[in-house]
Amino acid sequence: MKRLLEPNTVLYPVPLVIVVCGTLEKPNLLAVNRIASVAAEPPQVAMSLRRGRYSMGLIQEGGEFTVNLPTPALLSAIHLIGTTTGRDTDKVARTGLALSPAAKVKAPLVAACPINIECRLTHTIDLRSHLLFIAEVVAVHAEESVLNHKGEIDYRRCNPLVYEAAIVRERPND
Amino acid sequence: MKRLLEPNTVLYPVPLVIVVCGTLEKPNLLAVNRIASVAAEPPQVAMSLRRGRYSMGLIQEGGEFTVNLPTPALLSAIHLIGTTTGRDTDKVARTGLALSPAAKVKAPLVAACPINIECRLTHTIDLRSHLLFIAEVVAVHAEESVLNHKGEIDYRRCNPLVYEAAIVRERPND
Repeated sequence: MKRLLEPNTVLYPVPLVIVVCGTLEKPNLLAVNRIASVAAEPPQVAMSLRRGRYSMGLIQEGGEFTVNLPTPALLSAIHLIGTTTGRDTDKVARTGLALSPAAKVKAPLVAACPINIECRLTHTIDLRSHLLFIAEVVAVHAEESVLNHKGEIDYRRCNPLVYEAAIVRERPND
Repeated sequence: MKRLLEPNTVLYPVPLVIVVCGTLEKPNLLAVNRIASVAAEPPQVAMSLRRGRYSMGLIQEGGEFTVNLPTPALLSAIHLIGTTTGRDTDKVARTGLALSPAAKVKAPLVAACPINIECRLTHTIDLRSHLLFIAEVVAVHAEESVLNHKGEIDYRRCNPLVYEAAIVRERPND
């Protein structure tokens, strides 16, 4: 027996990632769960941010960001990242996350994340409550420990986080 | 120690869903893993399809589709859906999946999926290898068994599929 619910975007499972924008000298961190692969040649991702988030301007101005796939060890850092804003909080200092330089973009990488994806903005689309950023993937870094013998990522070794609205209920404001 | 890989969209985890386009009389099924929630007010999803897929025209002409979240019981059906094309295969007959009418769109629902999302196309964006379809969610159906006592979806009751390239390796051609 099915029930008709209010329209909502109830996809599951979805990834929960740490996005870094800005620069190594002046970075900001944000927690994002509205993100997907959207093309293969060239590889592109789409990421959606609610209007008013502090990082919106940094991404639009800088045109670059990194997507960092966390492990459960980073859950408390993500909680802090997702419930504070870079307007009044130095999230890098507060979380103690080490950042390292990227290969091709100005935004740095989260060193503790086993997979880091470097992205360069190509399209910005107005979706009313949110802006959708489409970006080309220009480099990928992966820990040796998550690669198989052919040098491919084996996700069973990654232990990624899955976003679940009932658990991570606070609305990110950054 | 990290290794620099070729650019690729290595997000994880991602959902694996059955999309239905066309009509109840002439439906087609496709397996999609490039899909995400992209906005909240109004709720919108973005779904990306490789150029040349048979369903591309059906979605562009009809302007409507449904997103159906499967359970592991549907894995062999999804395998068939993702490795055949509606050009020469009646996937509904081949999988034996029962379809039921939607509330607001012409494309039908997969009855066996515990969650069904009705979508109406709003934007089509050219991303070279793929087209990105952005659609507004106009209705959601959920099995009583996946709802909590407040009538909200509890994803721990859904047992959804997760797409993992190493397992579902074939490229969908539809």
